[in-house]
Amino acid sequence: MQRLLDTLHTPADLKKLTPEQLPQLAAELRAFIIDVVSVKEGHLGASLGVVELTIALHYVFDTPNDLMVWDVGHQAYGHKILTGRKDKFDTNRQWGGLSGFPKIKESIYDAFGTGHSSTSISAALGMALASKIKGDISRNHIAVVGDASIASGMAFEGLNHAGVTDANLLVVLNDNAIGIDPSVGALKNYLTQVKEGKNPRQNNMIKSLNFDYTGPVNGHDLPVLIKELQRLKNKPGPKFLHIVTTKGKGMKQAEENQVKYHAPGKFDKTTGELLPADNSNLPPKYQDVFGLTLVELAQNNHKIIGITPAMPSGSSMKFMMEAFPERAFDVGIAEQHAVTLAAGMATQGMVVFCNIYSTFLQRAYDQVIHDVALQNLPVIFCLDRAGLVGEDGATHHGVFDIAYLNCIPNLIIFAPLNEKELRNILYTAQLGLPHPIAIRYPRGRAQHTGWQNDFDKISIGKAYQLRTGAKVAILSTGTIGNNVIEALNGTENADLFSHYHFGFIKPLDEELLHTILNSYTEIITLEDGAVTGGFSSAIAAFATKYAYKPEIRILGIPDEFIEQGTIADLQHYCGIDVKSLKDIFSAYIN
Amino acid sequence: MQRLLDTLHTPADLKKLTPEQLPQLAAELRAFIIDVVSVKEGHLGASLGVVELTIALHYVFDTPNDLMVWDVGHQAYGHKILTGRKDKFDTNRQWGGLSGFPKIKESIYDAFGTGHSSTSISAALGMALASKIKGDISRNHIAVVGDASIASGMAFEGLNHAGVTDANLLVVLNDNAIGIDPSVGALKNYLTQVKEGKNPRQNNMIKSLNFDYTGPVNGHDLPVLIKELQRLKNKPGPKFLHIVTTKGKGMKQAEENQVKYHAPGKFDKTTGELLPADNSNLPPKYQDVFGLTLVELAQNNHKIIGITPAMPSGSSMKFMMEAFPERAFDVGIAEQHAVTLAAGMATQGMVVFCNIYSTFLQRAYDQVIHDVALQNLPVIFCLDRAGLVGEDGATHHGVFDIAYLNCIPNLIIFAPLNEKELRNILYTAQLGLPHPIAIRYPRGRAQHTGWQNDFDKISIGKAYQLRTGAKVAILSTGTIGNNVIEALNGTENADLFSHYHFGFIKPLDEELLHTILNSYTEIITLEDGAVTGGFSSAIAAFATKYAYKPEIRILGIPDEFIEQGTIADLQHYCGIDVKSLKDIFSAYIN
Repeated sequence: MQRLLDTLHTPADLKKLTPEQLPQLAAELRAFIIDVVSVKEGHLGASLGVVELTIALHYVFDTPNDLMVWDVGHQAYGHKILTGRKDKFDTNRQWGGLSGFPKIKESIYDAFGTGHSSTSISAALGMALASKIKGDISRNHIAVVGDASIASGMAFEGLNHAGVTDANLLVVLNDNAIGIDPSVGALKNYLTQVKEGKNPRQNNMIKSLNFDYTGPVNGHDLPVLIKELQRLKNKPGPKFLHIVTTKGKGMKQAEENQVKYHAPGKFDKTTGELLPADNSNLPPKYQDVFGLTLVELAQNNHKIIGITPAMPSGSSMKFMMEAFPERAFDVGIAEQHAVTLAAGMATQGMVVFCNIYSTFLQRAYDQVIHDVALQNLPVIFCLDRAGLVGEDGATHHGVFDIAYLNCIPNLIIFAPLNEKELRNILYTAQLGLPHPIAIRYPRGRAQHTGWQNDFDKISIGKAYQLRTGAKVAILSTGTIGNNVIEALNGTENADLFSHYHFGFIKPLDEELLHTILNSYTEIITLEDGAVTGGFSSAIAAFATKYAYKPEIRILGIPDEFIEQGTIADLQHYCGIDVKSLKDIFSAYIN
Repeated sequence: MQRLLDTLHTPADLKKLTPEQLPQLAAELRAFIIDVVSVKEGHLGASLGVVELTIALHYVFDTPNDLMVWDVGHQAYGHKILTGRKDKFDTNRQWGGLSGFPKIKESIYDAFGTGHSSTSISAALGMALASKIKGDISRNHIAVVGDASIASGMAFEGLNHAGVTDANLLVVLNDNAIGIDPSVGALKNYLTQVKEGKNPRQNNMIKSLNFDYTGPVNGHDLPVLIKELQRLKNKPGPKFLHIVTTKGKGMKQAEENQVKYHAPGKFDKTTGELLPADNSNLPPKYQDVFGLTLVELAQNNHKIIGITPAMPSGSSMKFMMEAFPERAFDVGIAEQHAVTLAAGMATQGMVVFCNIYSTFLQRAYDQVIHDVALQNLPVIFCLDRAGLVGEDGATHHGVFDIAYLNCIPNLIIFAPLNEKELRNILYTAQLGLPHPIAIRYPRGRAQHTGWQNDFDKISIGKAYQLRTGAKVAILSTGTIGNNVIEALNGTENADLFSHYHFGFIKPLDEELLHTILNSYTEIITLEDGAVTGGFSSAIAAFATKYAYKPEIRILGIPDEFIEQGTIADLQHYCGIDVKSLKDIFSAYIN
């Protein structure tokens, strides 16, 4: 029997189905998502949880004329599949394939690109106000937002504005009590009370913000969803539908272990069991080096505090939260708060490790400048997922941090070469620094297995030489320097190259730079970051300042947004993978 | 009779007063603030409004052991005067004098530096959690925050976290229904309902966030304030005191015209009348060039929309709000929302002018990258108060924007030389650009009076020559180029210098740069911005890329935080005022 799913090419086809056919479609959509994600990997739980909502929204509303914004976008697989991308769905998150997130350029059904959280209300409100100005009063504008996202300040700003407009905006709160990790915060507790009927209806925070509130309703009950959406479709002004769903719905393991099945990697689609990988001989993840080292340090240094904005698992801050729950804080998706909270703690002499993904520190840029650096408070920022992140793509690469941090006075910026240096800089930082520091390190596995070495103190601002050569000085920063090491390994003309590791991007090792620039006229700089304003710019500015006139070849991320793919794909595209480097190095002749 | 105020050197002295003496102290404190600010200028209304609160807080709490954070800090003059800075208060906002904001380095009574809004809850919570971890359970931690500030997302993030802690935190909401301009948004309407008794007590948004809520109480009633603060002082956990005050309290004109008397300039301290300045022959403010030109353009282009986050007066967006209220939005202190709202509107073909002070765009950095530039939506950012801003000082200088924006792909960055170019770039932008654009211009007056010229379209990416000379090429960007023009005017060796205006920092005029670098080996770059990663870096990177080897002398803001002072003071400190430039230019010989 042909699947209903195979008969649908656009949402217009979906609308031809009878309400009675929709549960079957939901089952097929779930199975399809599980089929593909079990093999191709990706985000599973969020999309399983909104299968009914996705069907109901496209059944009731008139997309693409009605505009739908999926907050974060992890949950939009069903939406992609129902809007003409079913046949390409097996290219999800691959180089040249579908993005893992909604994307305007990918489909007219993707009204707004997402990736970072809590943007949907603002974006949909902007669309709704534009429609109103254009006199397009029948168009609907829908933001689908989770309970973890709606607790972020930006979402509150959107609600606060929307509530004083007559914009035709529907906010659907997909309340499943979890983001990537379980939701936290007072709003979450409030929503839980509402769901449990413990909070009187009249005490409604959303109504206080002047929204027409409906809920909570069962987000897996298609008839109820359709009825409510149809009713709300014809209501003008700002509306709020609170639905309750289960993340991972329809797959036992995903429901029971929601954190693991957020993005589970490959799994057996029948049993749901994760396919075990033999990691026993692999180096640790940088995340675990951070998380386990922090616990080690916190055992002796009682002033150490850990802060994560909603990434206890991803950052491995979970280890600190388990070991020292009173000194570790998951503040939810609240990067701004996380940074200024850290600053407040630092004024009281605490040694605060504030771990934020590089791409998400963009959310707290002002707080880094205004609350930390300006006051020269020695907060220790750990910038996880710095550099190219791979399959999450353009929204998530942590490639701008060197550029946006380097202009901030008082800040130290460090990028370790390997797990040992990451450990040692964490150790050094907690001994007490005269300035705040940002430590950037990538997603994924470190270089070596035997990583739990004794601690060594790192000299702030010191770079060092890894290899001596005759003609060209390669200056690299961070773990991408390992590509240089590998590329020069066995290369015929390797003895032409000196290689220097600049862990400190700020302050630069000026003494060594003078030595290098007095010795070499050919320089190569390499960084896993945007070259515009990045490490290369700092080197070029130094050379300019002291009137050195080397030839500098700049390698790194070009001035464009880089799409998704494996890190190998992306490094190759940028010309900074081992093979590209080998080719570049081979072209030099003595 | 000696003033009570003159007998107080620390808050400990204040505590020796009887409750009956406090109203007199309040009157004296108000008079003192008015005395000084009427002559020395500064922020008036906010501090007048919290005179009673300031006295009550220091009377009840044990500062500096108890920690007090003043959100934004405009209202902290009374606090400064009562904490040992009365005799220096006439140096307020001057070079080498007191900061206009709380500042840790200035006083042990300033627990946290402020300036940008909505940081106080996070900072005070950080302190409170640190105290708890240290076992210091009797210490109090107080955040004083206005109703405009608390509506910003960051404040919500702080409340949301605080509500699930048992931190000893007191949030005092100073509700006067105004920030710099009147407060906006659904939360403001909610608070107004609460104050008017229209909202049933049980429907309490703050209680929903698990705070122990008290209020609203009269914030000018000293006995009530003292009683409530004493009661709350001994209560553990997160507490919230909602007080109602009048901005400008105690000075008729300041109460009646709260926007004008926020920072009124000089005024007659007896009559309250503003001292009239004869501005008739002065050039317009850049702000008015923006605001009035926008209205002019909006008359013909019906797709034009204006957005300001809480700065309708300061940015002169008020003109657009008056002329086209349906197309102009004050979204409150919500920069993040403002930017993504603009992005949402831009997806629907609207031509959105999003005006944000340079220093405050730091709050929306991620949204510029993730929601605007990544999707290449042609939002027009108008970055008011770019460069050195003068007396507001280190928290407010707009000096990092070139560096933090230049690394963003797809973005155009433009800095006009004068009012005419500002007008023309606004005109050009609304014709339709293939990319988003950031237009940076300074606080204060433009160059010429007859500014309402016909519009000319500007060629994107084109720089041009202002003066031809033999030996040195000066490359400047933005209005600071007028300092070069003035410095070379009548300078003996002026014919040594060519001067080029690079309105476009991105994209650079590469063709002209090749011509310049082929013609000159001595280059001077000049910008009213941080040189680290700024315009100079872009020029140096270009020279590096194409293997030019000029001598480049870099002029701009050094890699440090610059304190308050007149713009003349600060430009001189940075070596970019006319006199410094004259000295630099004079030293060149043929």
